[in-house]
Amino acid sequence: MIAFLNLLGVAVFAVAGALAAVRRGLDVFGVGIIAIVTAIGGGTLRDLLLGVAPVGWVREPDALLVASAAGLVTFFWVRHRPMPERLLNLADAAGLALFTGLGCAKAQASGAHPLVVPVMGMLTGAAGGVLRDVLCAEVPLIFRREVYATAAILGGCAYVVLFGIAGADAALLAAVALTLVVRLAAIRWHLNLPAHADGAHHG
Amino acid sequence: MIAFLNLLGVAVFAVAGALAAVRRGLDVFGVGIIAIVTAIGGGTLRDLLLGVAPVGWVREPDALLVASAAGLVTFFWVRHRPMPERLLNLADAAGLALFTGLGCAKAQASGAHPLVVPVMGMLTGAAGGVLRDVLCAEVPLIFRREVYATAAILGGCAYVVLFGIAGADAALLAAVALTLVVRLAAIRWHLNLPAHADGAHHG
Amino acid sequence: MIAFLNLLGVAVFAVAGALAAVRRGLDVFGVGIIAIVTAIGGGTLRDLLLGVAPVGWVREPDALLVASAAGLVTFFWVRHRPMPERLLNLADAAGLALFTGLGCAKAQASGAHPLVVPVMGMLTGAAGGVLRDVLCAEVPLIFRREVYATAAILGGCAYVVLFGIAGADAALLAAVALTLVVRLAAIRWHLNLPAHADGAHHG
Repeated sequence: MIAFLNLLGVAVFAVAGALAAVRRGLDVFGVGIIAIVTAIGGGTLRDLLLGVAPVGWVREPDALLVASAAGLVTFFWVRHRPMPERLLNLADAAGLALFTGLGCAKAQASGAHPLVVPVMGMLTGAAGGVLRDVLCAEVPLIFRREVYATAAILGGCAYVVLFGIAGADAALLAAVALTLVVRLAAIRWHLNLPAHADGAHHG
Repeated sequence: MIAFLNLLGVAVFAVAGALAAVRRGLDVFGVGIIAIVTAIGGGTLRDLLLGVAPVGWVREPDALLVASAAGLVTFFWVRHRPMPERLLNLADAAGLALFTGLGCAKAQASGAHPLVVPVMGMLTGAAGGVLRDVLCAEVPLIFRREVYATAAILGGCAYVVLFGIAGADAALLAAVALTLVVRLAAIRWHLNLPAHADGAHHG
Repeated sequence: MIAFLNLLGVAVFAVAGALAAVRRGLDVFGVGIIAIVTAIGGGTLRDLLLGVAPVGWVREPDALLVASAAGLVTFFWVRHRPMPERLLNLADAAGLALFTGLGCAKAQASGAHPLVVPVMGMLTGAAGGVLRDVLCAEVPLIFRREVYATAAILGGCAYVVLFGIAGADAALLAAVALTLVVRLAAIRWHLNLPAHADGAHHG
């Protein structure tokens, strides 16, 4: 079940990454690479920081295959179809929620400090998109987007609180649900965190 | 004592990172993330390369807490105050010197080759700022700035030379002092390394 | 022999990285850093992902020395000479082919899944250049260049197929040769993978 949810998240993020790469005019190989990086970058970074070696997909490359396939299908699909922006936002929120929950579970299992568990959940959910944007030489969307990583941090805190009270399964469920609800609410009502309006003029 | 110096360096770098993020108009969450990345990015990269697993802050997240707090305080502080540029340059130089010395000590203790010890010191001191600039999609300041990483390399060489002669404590002290003096001198007299003036027109 | 081929690849990539850095007007230190990152970045990333700790050059820094030396010689050389563009393209293709073969061999030896071996070969050959471009805040050349990483993937597939049939040496030879031939053919006839011509106007 967890393996299935993970591959679902991989596929969703690969599609989102591929669409971003197509928009930037990359060739079919570039689109595939960006799809893979978006889909497995967060989990890879988490594994490196936790000291899980080798990282997950070196021995069991299912995620690599699913991400490549999803990226290529997307590349050829959008040749003839308009981009389903709305569906994509929903799917990306679902991927963020799934990866956040699964990342928290992996961090908890590896003995990370309770304060670090939500950080690892957030990295798992959000770092793939950051890597994608860095490779495209853009300021990561996450820094400009409605409550995104914040939703993951909130979900991760729910994980830590519930893990002690109600066990691992309830904690995972709560983390996924809370991240999803907060992110969808942020999309629906365009919630943003405060920024200095005159940022660009400082210094 | 070493733990205290380390947290001091973390706080200083977090403030410098937060100011850079505010200048670019990021929201409060983005400012916090950039502050953390600037403050612990260098040590994290060093730990990964040395094979220290999991990286330091996964089990003992003091640095994470100090960096977040320093980043948030900075965010709200600069709303009402001008930026203390001059103090900041001094503090950043102090952070560079501290992290260079501590990075050399950690590399030495983990059995790195003597030629690699100064490289690890320099990475510990300078890589956090490089990561910050990469996340902001800018050419890292370090590549355009008065003698910065070079100061760290010189400090690191002092560490290696003195470690064999005078022991670990004297080596640490010398590395911190030399890095600081070289960096402050570079700021004071605007020292720069040679570059090809016609760089942009080549090729 | 393998160690010699590896250092040859390091030198070639360091020269290519240094030339790219000179073009961007970096100072002598920046040029040295970019040369090193280009030359050893791919192998470092591969070692991190495979869980080889510490990464190769921490204990035996030959590659670090060769890359620094090649970068500095290049910096001073181009002051007085035109850039040998054509030779450089050949040399870069040779570096890509060597690193791809050696990366496949290392991944195979560390127990990576057969599908992952070509990916590690490609990362070893191409990730250094990607890191260089990211540090220079540019969209990686690899995403815009004639069949580059694709040549490495093809070479890596040849490695996996031949490893079972003809042994490690023949597999290494075939991977290097196929990568080199495909890449040189792509340069010669300007082969490109398909992209969406209207990429920039999507979304």
